[in-house]
Amino acid sequence: MINDKLLEVILSPPDSALTIATKGPGGIHLINSWNSYIQITDDDKLLLPAGQMEQTEKNLKKNNEIKMTICNRDVQGKTYKGTGFLVTAKATFATSGREYEMVKNKFPWARAALVLVIKEAIQTL
Amino acid sequence: MINDKLLEVILSPPDSALTIATKGPGGIHLINSWNSYIQITDDDKLLLPAGQMEQTEKNLKKNNEIKMTICNRDVQGKTYKGTGFLVTAKATFATSGREYEMVKNKFPWARAALVLVIKEAIQTL
Repeated sequence: MINDKLLEVILSPPDSALTIATKGPGGIHLINSWNSYIQITDDDKLLLPAGQMEQTEKNLKKNNEIKMTICNRDVQGKTYKGTGFLVTAKATFATSGREYEMVKNKFPWARAALVLVIKEAIQTL
Repeated sequence: MINDKLLEVILSPPDSALTIATKGPGGIHLINSWNSYIQITDDDKLLLPAGQMEQTEKNLKKNNEIKMTICNRDVQGKTYKGTGFLVTAKATFATSGREYEMVKNKFPWARAALVLVIKEAIQTL
């Protein structure tokens, strides 16, 4: 699921904002995090620290699918420098366990780990 | 609508991806563009070049509201360096007129101008 190009987008400078969309009662709900905040587990889950993200957590209880865009202006894309991925994933919040510990260890302020199991990752640019 | 901080996010390096969300028949539809592609009109509309964006255009015909996240890792935010805005806007595609010409002049490959009339811009980070 995590091919070399997606890995390059996640790991290369400059750091950049990613966007996560969920469906909420008021419509589309968008939040941001930073590419550099991602940790990747041995089994290719993506972990992000949740500081607030309360509405996202509520939305996931009704529909646990998220869409995420993640881009990097300095990574070569299909036709020019600058590329990005549209990621569809199943998402959960973890407040205990190994994935939570990984996040908490790096981001002591995190109240939870947002755990993404990638369903599909399409390079769009 | 466009305060100094939002202007700083749009205009300052490093260039970064922005995300635009619309409601589509298959759910949430996300696209990306780059902060540096934005042009601002005298009356504070945001213009973006549309290369493809066909699904976004279709979605806007049924519901012309978009949500956009736009961030900059190097601009001071509320608590640390790195900030972003959640923008709600009414969006249309222009294929003629002054706004289209502005976009076409800078981006000859653009098939249209995506014109955003900001309803609300909230600094989220």
